[in-house]
Amino acid sequence: MNDRLEQQIAFCREIDKEKLILRQTLLSNGAQREDDAQHAWHMAIMTLLLSEYANEKIDVLKTISMLLIHDLVEIDAGDTFAYDEEAKKSQRERELKAADRIFGLLPKDQGEKFRALWDEFEAGETPEAKFAHTMDNIQPAMLNAATGGKLWEARGVRLSQILKRNEATGAGSKKLWQYSLENFIMKNAEAGKIIDDTGKEA
Amino acid sequence: MNDRLEQQIAFCREIDKEKLILRQTLLSNGAQREDDAQHAWHMAIMTLLLSEYANEKIDVLKTISMLLIHDLVEIDAGDTFAYDEEAKKSQRERELKAADRIFGLLPKDQGEKFRALWDEFEAGETPEAKFAHTMDNIQPAMLNAATGGKLWEARGVRLSQILKRNEATGAGSKKLWQYSLENFIMKNAEAGKIIDDTGKEA
Repeated sequence: MNDRLEQQIAFCREIDKEKLILRQTLLSNGAQREDDAQHAWHMAIMTLLLSEYANEKIDVLKTISMLLIHDLVEIDAGDTFAYDEEAKKSQRERELKAADRIFGLLPKDQGEKFRALWDEFEAGETPEAKFAHTMDNIQPAMLNAATGGKLWEARGVRLSQILKRNEATGAGSKKLWQYSLENFIMKNAEAGKIIDDTGKEA
Repeated sequence: MNDRLEQQIAFCREIDKEKLILRQTLLSNGAQREDDAQHAWHMAIMTLLLSEYANEKIDVLKTISMLLIHDLVEIDAGDTFAYDEEAKKSQRERELKAADRIFGLLPKDQGEKFRALWDEFEAGETPEAKFAHTMDNIQPAMLNAATGGKLWEARGVRLSQILKRNEATGAGSKKLWQYSLENFIMKNAEAGKIIDDTGKEA
């Protein structure tokens, strides 16, 4: 009788592990690394407040649901740093395997629903997925800027890398991408915290 | 022109501090304390999955919004342990002051909306607020049970305290309260991790 609820609770217990997955991003105090659960929580609230800037009308609950669950695969696959090209090669395969296991813990209907949300996020084609990616890029840029570009500087991140990573950020919200570019990214490039290599290539 | 967006971003930057507010609850690994942001993220996903057990039909987006923001006041007021009777005396006053400051960072319309959600959660009278309180009580019980009752045992928590704290947990979901009572609470009382003082009073 309680099989469904047992499966749901087992999943809820399992995802507690996401709180142990550390990202590269530093919190705004510059002293601690952010974990995946904190990151998802932060973007969910940001979506509640900033959805008015989406290029296309978005379903806020769907977008938030997507953001809340999009990193669950990292419980098995680990966090892959945005500028670690070697790790990124195997990322897709590791995450697909993780999605099968983790969403497979749920009752079939809910597992399929969460998997579809994750697939939609990964594909990045719907208005909700585009906006979720905007959040996923803008939130760490905001934190990096809050620390005075500490992580960018420590890792020797180049402006061309950041711009490449953000190629689709404006697809979710032109306004938020413009804000992030001007206030979070270019100010740190001008301050020398991000290596401005774009002149060389021009 | 950008005043509204500047206020929204300032709020988003400010709430990063919630990640530093540690709760008493231990993560399921039993080794680390949970923070407020992790706690809110966890309950938001649990609501996506468990809203089907609400006694009354709930608006899921509203409930999740409430849960995501309900602990922001602790950025100023700190976390108050559920069984610290002394700290609980000043809790309401500290949290009201915090709500004024923190929600006051937002543009007026959004600040009022978040404040109304927080007030609704605090009042605990609507179906959404009742269910949010169910989550707020069941999620830490689930984690406490996952550690084998480590925190309950360490703090010498008594069953009568837990039952009193959970007086309204069933108001959001009878089914989930029953599950929590049987699987998380009573099993730990039977195992001696929670002091069963209810016999003495009977």
